[in-house]
Amino acid sequence: MKKELGGVWPALLTPLTESGQPAHDQIEKLVELFVKQGLGGLYILGSTGQWPLLTVEQRRAVAERVVKTAAGRIPVMVHVGAAATADAVALARHAAAIGADAVSAVAPIYYPAGPDLTFEHYRRIGAATELPLFVYHYSGVNQLALDPREYAERLLSLPHIGGIKYTDRDLYQLGLLHAFTRDRMQLFSGADELLCHAALSGSVGAIGTFYNLWGPACLAARQAFIAGSFEKGRRFMLTFQSAIAQVLRSQATWAFLRTALRLKYGIDVGPPKAPLGVLDKPWRDGEVERLIALVDEAA
Amino acid sequence: MKKELGGVWPALLTPLTESGQPAHDQIEKLVELFVKQGLGGLYILGSTGQWPLLTVEQRRAVAERVVKTAAGRIPVMVHVGAAATADAVALARHAAAIGADAVSAVAPIYYPAGPDLTFEHYRRIGAATELPLFVYHYSGVNQLALDPREYAERLLSLPHIGGIKYTDRDLYQLGLLHAFTRDRMQLFSGADELLCHAALSGSVGAIGTFYNLWGPACLAARQAFIAGSFEKGRRFMLTFQSAIAQVLRSQATWAFLRTALRLKYGIDVGPPKAPLGVLDKPWRDGEVERLIALVDEAA
Amino acid sequence: MKKELGGVWPALLTPLTESGQPAHDQIEKLVELFVKQGLGGLYILGSTGQWPLLTVEQRRAVAERVVKTAAGRIPVMVHVGAAATADAVALARHAAAIGADAVSAVAPIYYPAGPDLTFEHYRRIGAATELPLFVYHYSGVNQLALDPREYAERLLSLPHIGGIKYTDRDLYQLGLLHAFTRDRMQLFSGADELLCHAALSGSVGAIGTFYNLWGPACLAARQAFIAGSFEKGRRFMLTFQSAIAQVLRSQATWAFLRTALRLKYGIDVGPPKAPLGVLDKPWRDGEVERLIALVDEAA
Amino acid sequence: MKKELGGVWPALLTPLTESGQPAHDQIEKLVELFVKQGLGGLYILGSTGQWPLLTVEQRRAVAERVVKTAAGRIPVMVHVGAAATADAVALARHAAAIGADAVSAVAPIYYPAGPDLTFEHYRRIGAATELPLFVYHYSGVNQLALDPREYAERLLSLPHIGGIKYTDRDLYQLGLLHAFTRDRMQLFSGADELLCHAALSGSVGAIGTFYNLWGPACLAARQAFIAGSFEKGRRFMLTFQSAIAQVLRSQATWAFLRTALRLKYGIDVGPPKAPLGVLDKPWRDGEVERLIALVDEAA
Repeated sequence: MKKELGGVWPALLTPLTESGQPAHDQIEKLVELFVKQGLGGLYILGSTGQWPLLTVEQRRAVAERVVKTAAGRIPVMVHVGAAATADAVALARHAAAIGADAVSAVAPIYYPAGPDLTFEHYRRIGAATELPLFVYHYSGVNQLALDPREYAERLLSLPHIGGIKYTDRDLYQLGLLHAFTRDRMQLFSGADELLCHAALSGSVGAIGTFYNLWGPACLAARQAFIAGSFEKGRRFMLTFQSAIAQVLRSQATWAFLRTALRLKYGIDVGPPKAPLGVLDKPWRDGEVERLIALVDEAA
Repeated sequence: MKKELGGVWPALLTPLTESGQPAHDQIEKLVELFVKQGLGGLYILGSTGQWPLLTVEQRRAVAERVVKTAAGRIPVMVHVGAAATADAVALARHAAAIGADAVSAVAPIYYPAGPDLTFEHYRRIGAATELPLFVYHYSGVNQLALDPREYAERLLSLPHIGGIKYTDRDLYQLGLLHAFTRDRMQLFSGADELLCHAALSGSVGAIGTFYNLWGPACLAARQAFIAGSFEKGRRFMLTFQSAIAQVLRSQATWAFLRTALRLKYGIDVGPPKAPLGVLDKPWRDGEVERLIALVDEAA
Repeated sequence: MKKELGGVWPALLTPLTESGQPAHDQIEKLVELFVKQGLGGLYILGSTGQWPLLTVEQRRAVAERVVKTAAGRIPVMVHVGAAATADAVALARHAAAIGADAVSAVAPIYYPAGPDLTFEHYRRIGAATELPLFVYHYSGVNQLALDPREYAERLLSLPHIGGIKYTDRDLYQLGLLHAFTRDRMQLFSGADELLCHAALSGSVGAIGTFYNLWGPACLAARQAFIAGSFEKGRRFMLTFQSAIAQVLRSQATWAFLRTALRLKYGIDVGPPKAPLGVLDKPWRDGEVERLIALVDEAA
Repeated sequence: MKKELGGVWPALLTPLTESGQPAHDQIEKLVELFVKQGLGGLYILGSTGQWPLLTVEQRRAVAERVVKTAAGRIPVMVHVGAAATADAVALARHAAAIGADAVSAVAPIYYPAGPDLTFEHYRRIGAATELPLFVYHYSGVNQLALDPREYAERLLSLPHIGGIKYTDRDLYQLGLLHAFTRDRMQLFSGADELLCHAALSGSVGAIGTFYNLWGPACLAARQAFIAGSFEKGRRFMLTFQSAIAQVLRSQATWAFLRTALRLKYGIDVGPPKAPLGVLDKPWRDGEVERLIALVDEAA
């Protein structure tokens, strides 16, 4: 029986120590927080979770700790994508072995890969376990080179396909992917800045970076919007988009998030691994608090 | 006093005779139709209206006929953009002289133009008349090379700026433009396939090709969505997106529209000017009727 | 019998009066200059010649004056590309009637056009006269969406195909186009900054803006390079590229060219039509003379 | 004292066993071959060498074996680029410790990185050792977002900068980079298909995949061209470009190279790591031999 997934999921930040090792105590705190907040699930070791900067061993250790802490109280989807197919397959098997609920994988990175190679990569990952596979469509890595109908058909032919984490602002394509797959795939939108918009294109939920901080507000706004409060959805999205723009314009996203999680939740996610964040200027606490409140109050 | 604009506007098809001249009788029929349907306004001589394929004289003649027929019953916005700034300025003055309600202009075409040149082009057009100017942001012609905040500020500094016709699928940028301009500009979304989505980013209305055919359905769906029927908005958009995809995939959009307007309204918009449409395969009437009904029934 | 074309051709500037009309006396001076300089031919009313900013009537008048002045002493290729296929066809017929040597046409502009539509547009233009047609591949307008082999085959199937004006920096594609067409097409490179490089990919000549000013130097450098002076070619190209970069970086290319032609040849090409050049800051005569000498002395 | 580098360098294929481990015996054979052929140097563990698919430990082992086998008879440049700056720094130190001649690094991958972050990443790698650093400008990974003059200045300010491996077809930018850096940097062109063309833009040598197979022919053609045989350079490049196009069009580049190295040199480079090459169809020996001869005979 297929598990119903949906709602607002943080793309979990991976807390690290100053020396770049997984900070397991802070990881546990994050997981407990999101369980308590009633979020829809945890997406771990994705782009936000710094997978390309961690070793395969570190990725296993983080996944184990998250799944163990979640303890069935919240679904866990493990991003297992990797440059080498063999690494992705091994990580998928590990995720299944430790009791994760789903796996996800980005397309091949670095080397240009056409649709055939991309789908063979996905196929091997999907075939490696019984877990549902959520293809991570990340427009920074793979452009949609196919007609959405053909893309949908090829996705549906993948073993154990569960859906897509669709990180792209093109919601026409998302709507077409939904139209061509309906209840055979579950679509998560990955562009935080279009959280509510994406629901109009058939998304069942959203996975993103900023839900580490504003999960409850985003969940409330999304639910109110779906329940009929267009004006609430509109006002929230305009505020949320402005807040995201302020963070991105600072070119210090990591510094913002680290400060914000410390101030709001007392959790230290530590420094990112270089080159991420190495030029981030510090955010002042007051400025961070102002932004946190701005979004929370708009919900 | 600023006129309140909004709602669903057809980007008017320009009916032509077989020899490529404006078909004034059919133009009048179209205008009467849209007045009767209660649409929000008419956007004439834009990309859908084939401005690049018409002479300046033909453009004047069409504008005159539309404004005269509309006779104040529905606002008319005239696209006056042109390769040469002088042509655009002259067309703007003409639009003012004949009593149009607003002008619109696309960025410079063909030659690469940075922000400074683009805004100088707009400035001259805006300064040419007292009519509100709606910049036609068409992502096929001008990419948003500026930070949205700077773009907004430069737009606001244009003489007689009224707003934007934003033909782009990036609704994050649209939302930021709204956040930075609020009630000082009116934003129309130009991507039909994101009609309702765009309302979440602050659009007051929508201007597009398919509203020549499905104006009432789109108007009804947009109003219901804004009034709280999320589910209606979602279902309509998924259907509408699928219909648009079927039309575009045929690579015979003109043939579809011509057939559809003939079947549904008894209006013949004639052939487009080459190279547009020259390879269009004919649509069968039954197939067109099926698609028309599909969207109408989803509203 | 096919006329042998080749060498260095200016993409003729179209001298205009202050009121934007063709300045026929200056046009004649330019033509006489290039005849005297022994350049390979004249490419008129292309992008440099401001075709998109001129009326069809002005284009006819300029073509007539150039062909009449050239009087068979130098080949004349007329760019007849236009937004509307019918305009391009009419201009091609006019070029043939007045005794031009070849026609050229850019792909459809403004509206996105796939390969089929593009080739149908070309086909109608090629079929309109007995003159050889040189497709104007301008990467700013049409990207090479086809495999070069398929592109070459489709070009070869066009009526009266003569070759390509290839304005693109990708010299791998140019080499492949040559490999697939050999002596059935004549390839002109259109990127001035790669004048000599392009000869390695099979170009028979070059057409470009800066040959209005530096035609003799460029001709001498190209010939020396082909005759075996690699080092001369290398030194010239590095100098020429630097000079071009200085001009482009000024964002006042028109001002530079106008000043340079006045200083060097006593010809006034007048102002460009807006929006071109409207923000150009003036160049000081001394600075222009320095750049002119820099390139001339490198030849 | 600065070592003079130049000539034709293979971007060394990394021979692997069927189980994906470095095949040290075949690595030694390759190194001996290129020493015997008199090539200019070895560029190891770049894109061709599959760095993203190997572990840090495997990369160390391969580097050690190559440097030890080369034994000072041919310069070795080690690509140390990595997703994590710390990995790149550690690999650079390792390269210095084992006696490599230079290091190279690609820009940050996967996460979008602006110029500041990119140069900080480079700076840390350059500062880690006394070896000259060759920035690997790979247009698939980092677009030239800067004006070439500013790019050149920032490169020159890097500690121990040696030059660039410039893998991009834009030879105007390459020429400008040369003009702005002159003898302070050594530029290698990385687009095999423009081997000779790039010499006109100031490259001192070329680094690329196909020199694993056709090193001597490419070296001979480049030298003859520089010595004054334009026609030889032209003919060779047209043939070489066609051969490359045939290989790339097969979408089985790895299969071609593996077969070719086996047939021509009796070296088995083994299978690539998935996802690379997993869909490659086999090339027939005769077809491979025909292509090998085609290029060899054009030199």
